[in-house]
Amino acid sequence: MSKSYSVAILGATGAVGTELLSLLEERHFPVAQLRLLASPRSAGTIVTFAGENIPVEPVSDRSFDDIDIVLASAGGSTSKAYATKAVAAGAVFIDNSSAFRMHPDVPLVVPEVNPQAAATHKGIIANPNCTTILMNVAVYPLHQVSPVKRIVAATYQSASGAGARAMEEVKAQAQAILAGNTPITEIFPYPLAFNLFPHNTPLNDQGYCEEEMKMVNETRKIFAEPQLQITATCVRVPVLRAHSEAINLEFEQSLSVAEAKEILSQAPGVRVVEDFAANYFPMPIDASGRDEVLVGRIRQDISHPRGLELWLCGDQIRKGAALNAVQIAELLVAKNLLQPSEVAAV
Amino acid sequence: MSKSYSVAILGATGAVGTELLSLLEERHFPVAQLRLLASPRSAGTIVTFAGENIPVEPVSDRSFDDIDIVLASAGGSTSKAYATKAVAAGAVFIDNSSAFRMHPDVPLVVPEVNPQAAATHKGIIANPNCTTILMNVAVYPLHQVSPVKRIVAATYQSASGAGARAMEEVKAQAQAILAGNTPITEIFPYPLAFNLFPHNTPLNDQGYCEEEMKMVNETRKIFAEPQLQITATCVRVPVLRAHSEAINLEFEQSLSVAEAKEILSQAPGVRVVEDFAANYFPMPIDASGRDEVLVGRIRQDISHPRGLELWLCGDQIRKGAALNAVQIAELLVAKNLLQPSEVAAV
Repeated sequence: MSKSYSVAILGATGAVGTELLSLLEERHFPVAQLRLLASPRSAGTIVTFAGENIPVEPVSDRSFDDIDIVLASAGGSTSKAYATKAVAAGAVFIDNSSAFRMHPDVPLVVPEVNPQAAATHKGIIANPNCTTILMNVAVYPLHQVSPVKRIVAATYQSASGAGARAMEEVKAQAQAILAGNTPITEIFPYPLAFNLFPHNTPLNDQGYCEEEMKMVNETRKIFAEPQLQITATCVRVPVLRAHSEAINLEFEQSLSVAEAKEILSQAPGVRVVEDFAANYFPMPIDASGRDEVLVGRIRQDISHPRGLELWLCGDQIRKGAALNAVQIAELLVAKNLLQPSEVAAV
Repeated sequence: MSKSYSVAILGATGAVGTELLSLLEERHFPVAQLRLLASPRSAGTIVTFAGENIPVEPVSDRSFDDIDIVLASAGGSTSKAYATKAVAAGAVFIDNSSAFRMHPDVPLVVPEVNPQAAATHKGIIANPNCTTILMNVAVYPLHQVSPVKRIVAATYQSASGAGARAMEEVKAQAQAILAGNTPITEIFPYPLAFNLFPHNTPLNDQGYCEEEMKMVNETRKIFAEPQLQITATCVRVPVLRAHSEAINLEFEQSLSVAEAKEILSQAPGVRVVEDFAANYFPMPIDASGRDEVLVGRIRQDISHPRGLELWLCGDQIRKGAALNAVQIAELLVAKNLLQPSEVAAV
């Protein structure tokens, strides 16, 4: 009989938490016991998993006793409050927040890109930012064959990136606008329905927002390329779920479109979607609920002899968050990496 | 008493035609007589202009008798059918379609950028594509001070770019989706509400769509820089009106953010919109109905020592189409350029 594991989901009632539950069931993750944790506000909800009704418990210092794997998606402050406690209790803490991503003792893992980094964990493994994951799954296979020198990215990010309530807010705003009323903004600073705006995370002194700097710094860490040149413009668009990205790549040596397509058609986690006659390329509605990052419009950059352009869409909640976290858990199980050699000093 | 002119609007009932009428009135264009022309399908509609009810007439070969200026926005095939007839009848034909934009005998004019080109007209003057106009208004002032070598653009284009019916389609789709029904697509090939897709114009052998090649070729012609390196990814987003663009610029010599902001704050047709504390930058809802191109997020490209990033929004119907055409008419009147020296051989 194969081994099974005690799993805790921290932030079980959020958009990513809900998806984590679906994925554990759908992918037949060997769950021996499932503990659902959330803030006291959300505790008490009953969630069905594999035919069983499981109550959501308020998270506490003792929530991680006997837990092997924590899948955390309750925000940075909750992760900071509980990660070391979970690790001290013997669990591996797979964290979807940005709290530990850039910590030198915490591997930042996209299983299709740097699975080897997971082996170095000291109890905490970070799940990268959604836009980073989607870009990395598409770009890394090319980078392995022909090193990328510079990336210029522009994102088209759905409401789901701000959680389940943000998705409801956009729908309510659209309803209001269609009825001739003023849209109400609570989660987002400005109306998003029938509008768009630069990503509303704090800006640094250079005028880049946090979301953009995540794409820059996390990609460098995941690729283990601290010198990789990256710039990004991150924009929220009135799409419910699945992010899109326009990616301009400059290579050290030229890589042909045919080679790039061949590489991407074989790449794990990627699906090439291109029907030129039908003008059919990746779209958020097609990426939603799917595991793969859809990539298309792979073309020679006509402005640069060593450039390629590509366009991608990926499910922000799934591969951009929950699926990547479950894949990390699967990797730990498959490679027998649950026991850290030492505990991270975060 | 100052001179006034007989003006015909070809395509008077479309989204751009309606805006042309508003702008002629709002800007006190010296209209002696106004003739409203449309396809037989749309003829018969009564339109109010300056307090007068004017019937929309079906366009015919004799529609341009006694007309000084035609403002055409009825599509390329209609422009091709009537432009030379209007010119033969003594009118200047200001064309919003793409029919003649790249013709060597037809100047392609953005009044803030290349007003001098209007003086070379031979009866027909082309109004550039919306995305081109918006980008050029923002980029040319920088290019004049510090030559731009390469542009990497990603667009976020509203439904208005496909006309008034497309705007209605997006609203109807949103209504259907919110009610749990399947959205109907008639104008667009795929649902646009709560979704987005690469611009649905035909693709060339290199995989670039027509909209992208307009940005490339038209900008080169307007800037009179045939070697300027440009690449673009054009995307339709579920915004009703006003396009947005993420623009990455590489200069021959570095240009500082402070210099760029100073140049843009003085540039005609540009309004710098940047409030870092409030995370407030150009948005389509703020650009809609406004004349200026809103520019913000002007920042040093952290991936390139001679690069700048910027973000813009502009009203696609107004500066992206109707306003630019009316400005061309104003330029012809102000510079006494209505009479061509010779007639274009298009």
